Amino acid sequence: MTDLTAVKDALKSQAIETPSWAYGNSGTRFKVFAQPGVPRDPYEKLDDAAKVHEFTGVAPTVALHIPWDRVQDYAALARHAEERGVRLGAINSNTFQDDDYRLGSICHPDAAVRRKAVDHLLECVGIMDATGSRDLKLWFADGTNYPGQDDIRARQDRLAEGLAEVYARLGEGQRMLLEYKFFEPAFYTTDVPDWGTAYAHCLKLGPQAQVVVDTGHHAPGTNIEFIVATLLREGKLGGFDFNSRFYADDDLMVGAADPFQLFRIMYEVVRGGGLTSEVAFMLDQCHNIEAKIPAIIRSVMNVQEATAKALLVDRPALAAAQAAGDVLGANAVLMDAYNTDVRPLLREVREEMGLDPEPPAAYARSGWAEKIVAERVGGEQAGWGA
Amino acid sequence: MTDLTAVKDALKSQAIETPSWAYGNSGTRFKVFAQPGVPRDPYEKLDDAAKVHEFTGVAPTVALHIPWDRVQDYAALARHAEERGVRLGAINSNTFQDDDYRLGSICHPDAAVRRKAVDHLLECVGIMDATGSRDLKLWFADGTNYPGQDDIRARQDRLAEGLAEVYARLGEGQRMLLEYKFFEPAFYTTDVPDWGTAYAHCLKLGPQAQVVVDTGHHAPGTNIEFIVATLLREGKLGGFDFNSRFYADDDLMVGAADPFQLFRIMYEVVRGGGLTSEVAFMLDQCHNIEAKIPAIIRSVMNVQEATAKALLVDRPALAAAQAAGDVLGANAVLMDAYNTDVRPLLREVREEMGLDPEPPAAYARSGWAEKIVAERVGGEQAGWGA
Amino acid sequence: MTDLTAVKDALKSQAIETPSWAYGNSGTRFKVFAQPGVPRDPYEKLDDAAKVHEFTGVAPTVALHIPWDRVQDYAALARHAEERGVRLGAINSNTFQDDDYRLGSICHPDAAVRRKAVDHLLECVGIMDATGSRDLKLWFADGTNYPGQDDIRARQDRLAEGLAEVYARLGEGQRMLLEYKFFEPAFYTTDVPDWGTAYAHCLKLGPQAQVVVDTGHHAPGTNIEFIVATLLREGKLGGFDFNSRFYADDDLMVGAADPFQLFRIMYEVVRGGGLTSEVAFMLDQCHNIEAKIPAIIRSVMNVQEATAKALLVDRPALAAAQAAGDVLGANAVLMDAYNTDVRPLLREVREEMGLDPEPPAAYARSGWAEKIVAERVGGEQAGWGA
Amino acid sequence: MTDLTAVKDALKSQAIETPSWAYGNSGTRFKVFAQPGVPRDPYEKLDDAAKVHEFTGVAPTVALHIPWDRVQDYAALARHAEERGVRLGAINSNTFQDDDYRLGSICHPDAAVRRKAVDHLLECVGIMDATGSRDLKLWFADGTNYPGQDDIRARQDRLAEGLAEVYARLGEGQRMLLEYKFFEPAFYTTDVPDWGTAYAHCLKLGPQAQVVVDTGHHAPGTNIEFIVATLLREGKLGGFDFNSRFYADDDLMVGAADPFQLFRIMYEVVRGGGLTSEVAFMLDQCHNIEAKIPAIIRSVMNVQEATAKALLVDRPALAAAQAAGDVLGANAVLMDAYNTDVRPLLREVREEMGLDPEPPAAYARSGWAEKIVAERVGGEQAGWGA
Repeated sequence: MTDLTAVKDALKSQAIETPSWAYGNSGTRFKVFAQPGVPRDPYEKLDDAAKVHEFTGVAPTVALHIPWDRVQDYAALARHAEERGVRLGAINSNTFQDDDYRLGSICHPDAAVRRKAVDHLLECVGIMDATGSRDLKLWFADGTNYPGQDDIRARQDRLAEGLAEVYARLGEGQRMLLEYKFFEPAFYTTDVPDWGTAYAHCLKLGPQAQVVVDTGHHAPGTNIEFIVATLLREGKLGGFDFNSRFYADDDLMVGAADPFQLFRIMYEVVRGGGLTSEVAFMLDQCHNIEAKIPAIIRSVMNVQEATAKALLVDRPALAAAQAAGDVLGANAVLMDAYNTDVRPLLREVREEMGLDPEPPAAYARSGWAEKIVAERVGGEQAGWGA
Repeated sequence: MTDLTAVKDALKSQAIETPSWAYGNSGTRFKVFAQPGVPRDPYEKLDDAAKVHEFTGVAPTVALHIPWDRVQDYAALARHAEERGVRLGAINSNTFQDDDYRLGSICHPDAAVRRKAVDHLLECVGIMDATGSRDLKLWFADGTNYPGQDDIRARQDRLAEGLAEVYARLGEGQRMLLEYKFFEPAFYTTDVPDWGTAYAHCLKLGPQAQVVVDTGHHAPGTNIEFIVATLLREGKLGGFDFNSRFYADDDLMVGAADPFQLFRIMYEVVRGGGLTSEVAFMLDQCHNIEAKIPAIIRSVMNVQEATAKALLVDRPALAAAQAAGDVLGANAVLMDAYNTDVRPLLREVREEMGLDPEPPAAYARSGWAEKIVAERVGGEQAGWGA
Repeated sequence: MTDLTAVKDALKSQAIETPSWAYGNSGTRFKVFAQPGVPRDPYEKLDDAAKVHEFTGVAPTVALHIPWDRVQDYAALARHAEERGVRLGAINSNTFQDDDYRLGSICHPDAAVRRKAVDHLLECVGIMDATGSRDLKLWFADGTNYPGQDDIRARQDRLAEGLAEVYARLGEGQRMLLEYKFFEPAFYTTDVPDWGTAYAHCLKLGPQAQVVVDTGHHAPGTNIEFIVATLLREGKLGGFDFNSRFYADDDLMVGAADPFQLFRIMYEVVRGGGLTSEVAFMLDQCHNIEAKIPAIIRSVMNVQEATAKALLVDRPALAAAQAAGDVLGANAVLMDAYNTDVRPLLREVREEMGLDPEPPAAYARSGWAEKIVAERVGGEQAGWGA
Repeated sequence: MTDLTAVKDALKSQAIETPSWAYGNSGTRFKVFAQPGVPRDPYEKLDDAAKVHEFTGVAPTVALHIPWDRVQDYAALARHAEERGVRLGAINSNTFQDDDYRLGSICHPDAAVRRKAVDHLLECVGIMDATGSRDLKLWFADGTNYPGQDDIRARQDRLAEGLAEVYARLGEGQRMLLEYKFFEPAFYTTDVPDWGTAYAHCLKLGPQAQVVVDTGHHAPGTNIEFIVATLLREGKLGGFDFNSRFYADDDLMVGAADPFQLFRIMYEVVRGGGLTSEVAFMLDQCHNIEAKIPAIIRSVMNVQEATAKALLVDRPALAAAQAAGDVLGANAVLMDAYNTDVRPLLREVREEMGLDPEPPAAYARSGWAEKIVAERVGGEQAGWGA
């Protein structure tokens, strides 16, 4: 029923962006467990990201985070990436780690702090010009911890004003991706807490403003695939920050907590025509206790497997069952695809791409893990704070 | 600091709409416990609602639910209401209790069922013409129970199409209030699950389409006052369905589960200029085990108390503390108002309105409860199904 | 690595009990959609249950619900079951549908109501004597809707006293399975809300009192497999009420909402030695909008598939990775089993059992669905209330 | 109705323990915002804690955290406390910040790590001997992030074994308080995730092992007062870690997020006879963005206000309404107490105790805040990591 060649072609052309910060150390508020061999600068992060692409074949770009990845010469950084077979991707801003941002950044009650935050965002657009990045990804930690702490509505006004200034700075072909998050680090209000808020702002800003869905940023029980379908229908889905969670924003490997949910999300992407470069597929994860590069390889493979299953859904049969009101029949069509073991198919895809069919094993054999432990001695390991 | 006369005036002019169906029997899927004295027809429901207004002074209108409140002569029903001192309020549609609606109504895969649903909504607008009601309140039970059961996006298309037809039928001064709900009775997708979806549809429909916030229809942990502030800022808050909950859509008395949350919501209403007739303040509750009329009186009083506290917030002091970044100071200003015992103030307000200062006691003394138990014998008690 | 013969033997000897009430009509508080062909009495429910066993081979017993399944002659009912190839299973009590139970049953403030409730439970033990059932399954709807409504602790005293009287009545080989539920129909407190409360009561009652885990009865995010592992370790896991949910107690088909969770639960069962007759594997579901018998067949198959995957886990490899602290390696061992498509294996198992390898298709071809629609005309369809 | 003298006496003798770490810096995984004037060692923390007691009169003890508060001479530290008018309280262990604890401590798969963790706990008992502390408070960050990572049940065995060794070391009059937590920092399983698990372990250990309830450590929607009532009924409530939350373990000021919940908890404490020294009332909070000492003063006052309201409940009237099945009447009795403004009563209580009636204002006037900012220059500020 399904055209396997088309499925394979889609899988071969998939592009999943990995985040530079996932190669560095991360943790919880209780403890950051440092790992041996972790990169000490943006160049080494790119070296690791290149390995992920080398073994998976579908991770060609790397997201940067400013200031964690600030360098003197972005053109040189871009060349470094290209020499290793990858390219620079989205630029992620950071308006939450300066002492000035204790009460917010772009929504702060003090105009001087807002100015500083907007200036940082404008700097990021400048970096995009230098790196050739298309997307500016904005996540704001802004919010309040206590009722009354600040005026909810005034903060929206400030947000709108700041975003408008940054939007006006975007060049042709550049986009602003606005991320929402249910809570954390703010514990009472968050200034962009849900897709509705992000959507309302993006709508007013214009077509270059798009919503990004971080799969870990929702209230318990939220139906994420519904949001994906809705944003695609509205032409406002800019991309994903993939990860998974059992509780809050746990930032586990995507597909690790609820692989069926990931499949449902990817099915809506496929069904809504979102499997194109217009939607940025990015990881945003924390490998607090597990080996980082292998975890990212596994995550990329999890997205691949979910995508493969989504592509295998017998859509004519599904549509027929849906039209007939056959609840169990329609559900069975979807589940048939989900229950399929797509690992053999993906091994074929990799072989046809000239890759080892088993990326984790190939990476393990490559000696890279031992090499970076041996060579990356001294210096300061990269982490969220640096 | 606060102008007490203005506070009292605002409290005296407050209008809280009670729902006809709350006077009838209700329950859970496990059991409906019938109560003696419950109304047997729309006329008797209005008699009970009039008692709530008689003792509270701030419940002048009564929402109807079609077909539960279908009568031959709506003009006669309106006269009956007026003779008892109340008026007819919003018209609530019902597209969930016919066998045809097993898989949805306005979003159903079958065009014939959608036609039937839209026709019912058009009928409701006709009833509004007859009753002089301003608001058509739309809640759709539409959704799916199983992944794959129907196409999420196609259902949105159908929804948009149906709403557009109904919107076009609205007369001058009439409004469509679109309600969202997190889940139930659908257990996988709900077609209008959150404020963002309702907002996106209303925005496209036009200025007569507004969002209604049912306080029990959110995911766990959702910050409802943020939504209220945002919708007011967008000019899209049409009204409230008040109730309270500890878990899901429990439909308990408003203010019973989290009085502090109700206060925060009412504060955003006051702060956002929403304490006007443009925002409809309605109850939507189920008094499954407690006496119905006293429960509604208590609910009306709970909204009054929260409103009084919201009006007592020292807004200049709050603004000053917020501007200064004084987290604890700003929080303390808000809490000072919340911690105030406003019951003496409300007793004064009632006395100035010529009412008994203690509505529950006055109602208890009135003999109405005994009278309806004695007189409403025979016939079929009103409930959700009739 | 894994002994496939042993896996197949375990799958062939699996026993999943289906509930008589799942064959009748059910719904939400908003609407019960009646389905054609639904049984009209306990005998017809057993006829349907027998079909599920006929096509799956692993659903040999049927749980009864009293009073919904009350008959004059339980011996005759048991014979009817046996003639159709099944047996009577657990007896489920009902202390929530009489008007007396508005404020509770065994925890009610009025001793007379408590007496009535306990008498009903004693009646159920009497029925067990007649049917030869081993298990009395107790679910109490008891709780309160409003803070202060009743005394939380006094209700626990009443619960303990009532349970003790019923426990004392149990005969040799009989068990009491105590179910907990997070909420619903009570919306503030529930008298047995969590496994801890059920466990504490069962511990005091004695070895014949065991906890039953309904997979839909937990707070959002609860790790159910942890509870399963803990109760098995404590020797207090009496059984399961299987179903699935996205939100509250949705009672969807088991495995439909989160098949990975079901797998993890079954893995803990296997690992904890719980795949024996000491643990009762029961379904407790509501097929509100989908065809009932096919939904139950699918549910039984979902449990089978999860069990097969759990049995396929390479436990020595898993133990080795765990002992080595290899986070990703240990996870991968588990995921390898989960990602396996076990449907071919189960088709083999069925063929070796002399069954059709595809139960849904075989049932569809059998003509039973058409037969019951044609023959079950007149009378009153069974539902939760009858 | 209520004996006001008795209420005042109870309020005067209340004792709320403040945690040494709340005076230091804290934050989220995203950023720790340092505050000027923060203590640099345990002595300075005690100086601050003494100020809280000086102005509130009900915070006479201070909990220590080892190793954050490790000193050479605990007798000297105890004398320092007493010279400032306070005493040392519970000893809190830390088995989550050493690199060895990446995969757990007392539940770690490696026996050597478990040995180290248990040795640390034994060291803590030794410190209790030196300080005269009664309570060892145990919170374990142990758990796993990924399914399969470790064996759930084996970890329980290790936990039981480790706890038994520590329990055996307890001296007469010493207690072990076992804390449970829903999640964080572990994101899949937590080894003591709920009160049931803590209770089951404490029950086996013996009477000196008690459960401690951290009000922020529950699944969304959990009824905490039910747990409090149940643990008191079982004789197993050892104490509280007070704080409040809107989402996860937000560690906001107690009473800030849901003051009505705090009142209901304190009512169950009063009703269950728990307002004694047998139950330890402790704060465990993070003042990430607000001034720390004023936040702790406010938190202590919030507990006082909730306690005052709980003491004002007209218990005979409540019992009568409950016995009569008067749902609204019983709820109204409880709400009457909650809606009372107890701040005037507490001002009286403070004046009778020789204190300023307004602790926040008195503290602000005292000059302490300015003094510590001026004097605590240089050195390293205390925080979670030191």
